Amino acid sequence: MATHETLQQLSALKVSASFLNTSTIIALSVFFTLFCACIIIGHLIEENRWANESITALLLGLCAGGVVLLASKDRSSHLLVFNEDLFFLYLLPPIIFNAGFQVKKKQFFKNFTTMLLFGIWHTIGAILSATDSVCTFQVLSQDETPFLYSIVFGEGVVNDATSIVLFNAIQSFDFNNIDGTVALNLLGTFLYLYFTSTALGIVLGLLSAYIIKTLYFLRHSTDREGAPMMLMAYLSCILAELLNLSGILTIFFCGIIMSHYTWHSVTESSRITTKHAFATISFIAETFIFLYVFMDALDIDKWKASNARFLLIFFDSSLISCGCLNLELMSPDTLLQFSSSEDTSSQDSAVMITCTIIVVLFSTVLFGSITKPLIEAVLLRHTKTLDTDATDMQSLEDLRILFLENGENTDQGSNQQAAPRASGLRLLISYPTTTVHYFWRKFDVKFVRPVFGGRGFVPFVPSSPTDAVDEAS
Amino acid sequence: MATHETLQQLSALKVSASFLNTSTIIALSVFFTLFCACIIIGHLIEENRWANESITALLLGLCAGGVVLLASKDRSSHLLVFNEDLFFLYLLPPIIFNAGFQVKKKQFFKNFTTMLLFGIWHTIGAILSATDSVCTFQVLSQDETPFLYSIVFGEGVVNDATSIVLFNAIQSFDFNNIDGTVALNLLGTFLYLYFTSTALGIVLGLLSAYIIKTLYFLRHSTDREGAPMMLMAYLSCILAELLNLSGILTIFFCGIIMSHYTWHSVTESSRITTKHAFATISFIAETFIFLYVFMDALDIDKWKASNARFLLIFFDSSLISCGCLNLELMSPDTLLQFSSSEDTSSQDSAVMITCTIIVVLFSTVLFGSITKPLIEAVLLRHTKTLDTDATDMQSLEDLRILFLENGENTDQGSNQQAAPRASGLRLLISYPTTTVHYFWRKFDVKFVRPVFGGRGFVPFVPSSPTDAVDEAS
Repeated sequence: MATHETLQQLSALKVSASFLNTSTIIALSVFFTLFCACIIIGHLIEENRWANESITALLLGLCAGGVVLLASKDRSSHLLVFNEDLFFLYLLPPIIFNAGFQVKKKQFFKNFTTMLLFGIWHTIGAILSATDSVCTFQVLSQDETPFLYSIVFGEGVVNDATSIVLFNAIQSFDFNNIDGTVALNLLGTFLYLYFTSTALGIVLGLLSAYIIKTLYFLRHSTDREGAPMMLMAYLSCILAELLNLSGILTIFFCGIIMSHYTWHSVTESSRITTKHAFATISFIAETFIFLYVFMDALDIDKWKASNARFLLIFFDSSLISCGCLNLELMSPDTLLQFSSSEDTSSQDSAVMITCTIIVVLFSTVLFGSITKPLIEAVLLRHTKTLDTDATDMQSLEDLRILFLENGENTDQGSNQQAAPRASGLRLLISYPTTTVHYFWRKFDVKFVRPVFGGRGFVPFVPSSPTDAVDEAS
Repeated sequence: MATHETLQQLSALKVSASFLNTSTIIALSVFFTLFCACIIIGHLIEENRWANESITALLLGLCAGGVVLLASKDRSSHLLVFNEDLFFLYLLPPIIFNAGFQVKKKQFFKNFTTMLLFGIWHTIGAILSATDSVCTFQVLSQDETPFLYSIVFGEGVVNDATSIVLFNAIQSFDFNNIDGTVALNLLGTFLYLYFTSTALGIVLGLLSAYIIKTLYFLRHSTDREGAPMMLMAYLSCILAELLNLSGILTIFFCGIIMSHYTWHSVTESSRITTKHAFATISFIAETFIFLYVFMDALDIDKWKASNARFLLIFFDSSLISCGCLNLELMSPDTLLQFSSSEDTSSQDSAVMITCTIIVVLFSTVLFGSITKPLIEAVLLRHTKTLDTDATDMQSLEDLRILFLENGENTDQGSNQQAAPRASGLRLLISYPTTTVHYFWRKFDVKFVRPVFGGRGFVPFVPSSPTDAVDEAS
């Protein structure tokens, strides 16, 4: 009977997994079924140039939201209760990290100044679409339109820092006495935030490179190398949030540093794995965001709270959105920011949300569909211009020849570097970007890569013994 | 002034990421710092045969819990508020899926009957450690001790189904009138649950194989193939929970099917990526569980609630735990099951929790440390026995020769199969496991692989064009 008593005692405890919250399970089932459908349909229509995964997710999300709304008899279309933590802490970091990890660095930094100016200048846009970088991947291709991609995506990343500065500024400044000092103060805060966030990302990226290069050396294991990379990248983002810096900027630069140094120190299999796994995780997070946001778009409580006023604001915003030339791509992120602020005045909040939903729907479907055909049309007309651009990309090699025009080999011996450095100053004015890149490369190869690893500075690491394909069937 | 008003209106909304809950950020920072430390230290002491990642996580978790306890002045050591959803819905599925994905199938199914008997029989153990499979990876190696691994891990997977059956049984049966019918009823329910869960996993695994083979064919992209695999595996687990089946069993079999069919239809890069990414995610989830559980172990509320009674139970359980020969490895999972049941009678619950914590601590440190040296010692003594075992593994080839002893080629022509089939029945009695495997392989190659893909049944798929290594620096 001892067994019997124990069993009865145990039955008082929730022992089994089958006793999880049923509504959570139902919501997750519906959501993941849609998620799978979305990815598979998105893949099928990939070749259709008018559609993309974001539009599929949008339509599927809206349909599902509608079905849930009807099924729940107009009460509410809320299927999953999400909060801003889910978005800012778990979905956005992998997307931005992957962007930093996969970015074509030379091309990206070439347009750095333009990007920074756009990012600082477009302040109001930054509030409405603080983290609109997610949309960039859906409509712009890094390979086809590198310049546009750098500007739009880079601006989005810089926007995050700008929006933090602005938000803090709004809370602390007295706007009745705006003068030059305030503007300078804002600029100073922005620059401080920008550089500290970047520095934190670089430090953690280099730390990961150093750890992988030294500690993991000679006992590499593909299954163990991905974990510290992922976790340290995520840690950089969390630490930035802890220090009230821009997590987006930090994890973006952490990704850049990791792809430049850490990635070269791991095994061959790890390189393939990390590259594709980060891209896959980012892709899943992107689709997740689109699907979720539009499933929530039919939330009737918000629509009821916002009365006719929204129509006015809608047309206003749509005009701004269409009319402005700042290439701002509206994204669902904005929605999440607003929809999570439920403790504020509900009427204003609801108006903002419904209005943003319409702008986002409008811009995703319209701009999302026409971007690809538009770019194709423009590319066809300006093929010659692009050819020049492509030639310009190889000008580093030309510059190296310029530096070496007197026949000296700058890579050998430090005594011989005086001559090229003197001509370097002259060249810095003529070809600023290329010259900066040239000297950065020299510095990198001479001082940074020997310590932290990088292309050409780590011995070939074969895959670990456990990498062999499973022999059993 | 319009801009000014808009700005002030916006400031009422939570716009910026910096306004996330500060306590969440602090908790995440501490947790992920420890997480990184744990993985790096765990890697460094990997060669030490007395330690492993679980012991590192345990000690670091306890230290961190102690520091938090002191810092919060004995109030509580709770740093992160977790619930059973986190564990059962997000941490356990990737671990079990990876186990199914990486399992050496031939070796595993060879011991299927033994495993099943252990799993059904060890019912009381199943309640205290329903999902103890996580611990198996930490102390047993699939390569070094395949038999032990299959039995212990397989038993753990089957345990999950058993625990659901038992739990439902306890609630619905009248234990004052136990007779043979009840036992038969229980067995029937178990078998139903076991087969439906397995079938669901197989169906979703085959569905993913079919989708990848047909829809993704000729337009493979490594970044897009991992996502449907991950999501459909997760969907199988969630659907099982929805239908009150065993999610563990389902996702385990889904993993097996995916590695047998789906995995062979993707690009070469995808194969490397999925194999290692699943292992990495599983590794992260395992370390996460160990670290979390032991950070929570110093929760003084629970310790206070459980008075002297727990000492009695502790010695009782320790004796059972040490004395029994069922190879049950205590795992932190058990703790989570108990610690999440806060709405039950608090005194009993607290006793169960504190007692389980001690048993888990004890068994992780003691058994975790001595398992490796013990196995090494046993292996040295029984090398000859193992050699026989290894030879036995190649008996499929021998059997094939037996089948073909009259010189017929069974693979050609259906008319000639009567003779080997007749001798097959004779062989089934003499070599049951090998014969079943032989006929399964024939069936698989003839009917299943042509439809769903698999080794040798998909054309070589080169890596996608985007797989080329980034040329920029």
